[in-house]
Amino acid sequence: MRIIETADEMRAWAYARRAEGNWIGFVPTMGALHEGHASLMRASVEQNDVSVLSIFVNPTQFAPHEDYNRYPRTFEADCELAERIGIDAVYAPRVERMYPPNYATYVEVRRLTEGLCGRSRPTHFRCVTTVVTKLFHAVCPHRAYFGQKDAQQAAVIRRMTRDLDFGIEIVVLPIVREPDGLAMSSRNVYLSAEERARALCLSRGLLEAQRLLESGERRVDAIVDAVRNAMSGVQIDYIELVDADEMQPVSEIRGRVLLAVAAYVGQTRLIDNIMFDAESGIVT
Amino acid sequence: MRIIETADEMRAWAYARRAEGNWIGFVPTMGALHEGHASLMRASVEQNDVSVLSIFVNPTQFAPHEDYNRYPRTFEADCELAERIGIDAVYAPRVERMYPPNYATYVEVRRLTEGLCGRSRPTHFRCVTTVVTKLFHAVCPHRAYFGQKDAQQAAVIRRMTRDLDFGIEIVVLPIVREPDGLAMSSRNVYLSAEERARALCLSRGLLEAQRLLESGERRVDAIVDAVRNAMSGVQIDYIELVDADEMQPVSEIRGRVLLAVAAYVGQTRLIDNIMFDAESGIVT
Repeated sequence: MRIIETADEMRAWAYARRAEGNWIGFVPTMGALHEGHASLMRASVEQNDVSVLSIFVNPTQFAPHEDYNRYPRTFEADCELAERIGIDAVYAPRVERMYPPNYATYVEVRRLTEGLCGRSRPTHFRCVTTVVTKLFHAVCPHRAYFGQKDAQQAAVIRRMTRDLDFGIEIVVLPIVREPDGLAMSSRNVYLSAEERARALCLSRGLLEAQRLLESGERRVDAIVDAVRNAMSGVQIDYIELVDADEMQPVSEIRGRVLLAVAAYVGQTRLIDNIMFDAESGIVT
Repeated sequence: MRIIETADEMRAWAYARRAEGNWIGFVPTMGALHEGHASLMRASVEQNDVSVLSIFVNPTQFAPHEDYNRYPRTFEADCELAERIGIDAVYAPRVERMYPPNYATYVEVRRLTEGLCGRSRPTHFRCVTTVVTKLFHAVCPHRAYFGQKDAQQAAVIRRMTRDLDFGIEIVVLPIVREPDGLAMSSRNVYLSAEERARALCLSRGLLEAQRLLESGERRVDAIVDAVRNAMSGVQIDYIELVDADEMQPVSEIRGRVLLAVAAYVGQTRLIDNIMFDAESGIVT
């Protein structure tokens, strides 16, 4: 497995693979890999001829008060996992090469980034779309894999990819959960035992909402109230029902809607969500 | 010569050429080709294995009061010229495919876009960088060619290309002028005979500035005043000396500086510029 540090070297590798007729799969991450990332890597290895993992803790997408410095970094273990799964190259650029002096360029997706996590993290998505653009330009993949755990991010990246004619297929895979239901996240390591127990209320709230939806409940307030009741033990950032494409709040449930929650458990911000298709009645 | 209308088809063509080991040169234009564009196409044909011309009058980069509807469109003549010069493919996407419903994504270069044309056309460069990103993603060139006539645009594209790791070499070629000095522009066709005569004061003002610079004048005010005097017959938008990389106003002349002018001649907005290297004393 190759470890590649510069965009030029990464691109040369990718174009050589493409010239050989290979399809390239790509899993962009900030490292600290867990079973959620592993599911993305396995899908990429299965569906493409060669696969690239990127590991880059992007400083710009953290606000000054956020956890950039203490974000878990487990590069060696990440590479071992990637190699076991069959990843062919790890792209791990250095911060000073990604943001050289006088850096001035940003990629921005509007509307979809205004609500949900975009409201409490106003510069976050602009920095995510910018860094993903840079990673796409280095890796030149045919397909890129993202987790449904970051549902708004997935919708934003999908829109960006369409709008800017990237010609990359965006594959979004289901949330991977701990046996007790907690959505896997690199940030779960921050939780104390007591917080870990309290954090369960996010997935439990969503499970309750799922029960209501599956039993035919279609009132937005009833759904949101049920989740809020379940999450009384944590500091709620938002509980929102939005349409799955534009990420705009809905007043009635039809088409595909996303029920997304964010909350602080102690100092740790966690997110979780379910998707509901009102046509089929299926929750994912 | 192929005429290609969709990004997917364009990208497939480009990747096939790359897989054959060809270098791809790219000249993005809004059509209404003149000798300035021809110089870019000739350079591309000379320096690359295959060359692509794009023709797309980008509606978003025109403000509502600007000349989108009457911008000259000469597609057939443009294609004939391109074929004569040796262009291999013309990428001519349709507006409704470039900006599908719910379009939401913009690429923005900061700082460099704030002054000069960015001041009087506040959304212009954001739309230029966005459309050039889309064109780059479709054409996948090794090199792209721009004219020094749009000096700020060239600096902005160069910065964007570096910042976003496009891996594309940006080649900027000198302004091509009419025999009497007027910088070639697709907008020159708007000028009446009387306006055409008055428009000469832009290049004459810059020529006067060049004489001053070459004779050792280094006071910003003296240079700008000389140009303003020469341009008394037209409505000046700006006359500015900025540094060549960041496009920021300079208070003293050192390093590489751009002397840029914009003015309305009747209803027609014209721009022109010279670049001065204070180290070598050379004006280009």
